[in-house]
Amino acid sequence: MEIDGWFPHTVRVRFAETDAQGIAHHASYVVWLEEARVAHLAAVAGGYAAIRARGIEALTTGIELTYERAAVFDDVLTVLVRCGEARGARFRYEYVVERDGERVATGSTRHATVDAATRRPVRVPDWLLADLLSGQVPPSPSSSETS
Amino acid sequence: MEIDGWFPHTVRVRFAETDAQGIAHHASYVVWLEEARVAHLAAVAGGYAAIRARGIEALTTGIELTYERAAVFDDVLTVLVRCGEARGARFRYEYVVERDGERVATGSTRHATVDAATRRPVRVPDWLLADLLSGQVPPSPSSSETS
Amino acid sequence: MEIDGWFPHTVRVRFAETDAQGIAHHASYVVWLEEARVAHLAAVAGGYAAIRARGIEALTTGIELTYERAAVFDDVLTVLVRCGEARGARFRYEYVVERDGERVATGSTRHATVDAATRRPVRVPDWLLADLLSGQVPPSPSSSETS
Amino acid sequence: MEIDGWFPHTVRVRFAETDAQGIAHHASYVVWLEEARVAHLAAVAGGYAAIRARGIEALTTGIELTYERAAVFDDVLTVLVRCGEARGARFRYEYVVERDGERVATGSTRHATVDAATRRPVRVPDWLLADLLSGQVPPSPSSSETS
Repeated sequence: MEIDGWFPHTVRVRFAETDAQGIAHHASYVVWLEEARVAHLAAVAGGYAAIRARGIEALTTGIELTYERAAVFDDVLTVLVRCGEARGARFRYEYVVERDGERVATGSTRHATVDAATRRPVRVPDWLLADLLSGQVPPSPSSSETS
Repeated sequence: MEIDGWFPHTVRVRFAETDAQGIAHHASYVVWLEEARVAHLAAVAGGYAAIRARGIEALTTGIELTYERAAVFDDVLTVLVRCGEARGARFRYEYVVERDGERVATGSTRHATVDAATRRPVRVPDWLLADLLSGQVPPSPSSSETS
Repeated sequence: MEIDGWFPHTVRVRFAETDAQGIAHHASYVVWLEEARVAHLAAVAGGYAAIRARGIEALTTGIELTYERAAVFDDVLTVLVRCGEARGARFRYEYVVERDGERVATGSTRHATVDAATRRPVRVPDWLLADLLSGQVPPSPSSSETS
Repeated sequence: MEIDGWFPHTVRVRFAETDAQGIAHHASYVVWLEEARVAHLAAVAGGYAAIRARGIEALTTGIELTYERAAVFDDVLTVLVRCGEARGARFRYEYVVERDGERVATGSTRHATVDAATRRPVRVPDWLLADLLSGQVPPSPSSSETS
């Protein structure tokens, strides 16, 4: 896995996010992916508020998650996130959830940009596209060290 | 307990609402009270949408819950709900959560009516006040039978 | 769409399930699918409790959702659910979420059966397999009436 | 307000925690209080896991919240938390939720310690009592620096 394009975001499993099986409920991951995506957008594109300020709203049009290991209360998880693709009025995020370097889950979300007022599809604006893609390949100190 | 003023609303404990203690998480009750309140408003005042359609928004300004027994996954709970008080720009709801006639929790919520556009306090409108109070003492078939 | 194999389950969008975009948050659907799956299991296999009583636990190993239309507060949604596949220690559910006959979302979930004590994979027991598959094509009163 | 007894915990409002009124849903606060309480217990008593490891479970028996200002998506909130009282099998936590030094909400939760196996009430153990109370007035590095 190409590590450079991934933005790391940390979450700690809340007690309210567990269920009677004693593990983190599978719906909790959906919220963690969103929190990681928001953090990524803040890092590369000035935050979701900046996007909305320009009259653009991003809708979630799809999600896919594969759960490989259970997470439990108080686990510290790293959600690795990156924008995997962006074109037209659509973009796609990818995620890997890890605990101590061990893979817990993987997933992806699909999004559409719409005009905030009319809710009609609009192209992902160039400035956002550039930000998302720059986020995809940020300057990598470690790779330059190895060159 | 005066049964006549209470409006019954049924909820079934979702698996996602349980926690690693094997019981319904205490935050789940807050959502159940809201669902019961919405159902009560629908029954006595044409629903929350009707209130918003008149430019009124109801904010929640306080909540209080006492948990007496644990609820578990798949429990069918009856949330008894009534508007306990309404005056000026404020109203208050009361709740009793039961399972098979046994008390599980009691609580109350406090609300303020605001103008939907300005978010400034406005008096609970007379029509809503009447509806809330009529909801408080609905026609009781059983009591008329005994008279 | 083959209507007979689908089990209908109704949910009403809670206010707590909406978000600041004014629509039902995309994580809410994950919980609705679970509620529909639990209702289906109750109808065809005596409920999830019966399964656990036999020492079997069902884990969720994957989920996939495509959102086609937004749902809003107080919408009454029908979640059509069926067990799409079951073999070995795995089974798969399929879902269609509708509002007034209009498709709102589609999805699927993947599950694994494990021993409740050891959490090790165990084959989906024959009795459960039979129930799940019988659930897939239940007797249809309306079609028999018309024959 | 006596600042020394309060333990600060930071949360950032998730998008999933907002509702169609455009603000953080009032049930979200219940989860934030819990997260702050868990962080406080980790700081003063080795964490909730340590408590459970000694066979003690802490149940939530009551909650009270007063909402003074709305919080919105992405707000960074400080939850000030302290154990306000502990005696017998019961203890009580107090909370102040702030944003930029401005009070957003206040609240309290009530808890009972039970034997993890039997779920019967047991006294708050002395070691936990001491920890909770020490947490109430922790050593202040800044004040010792000035002495």
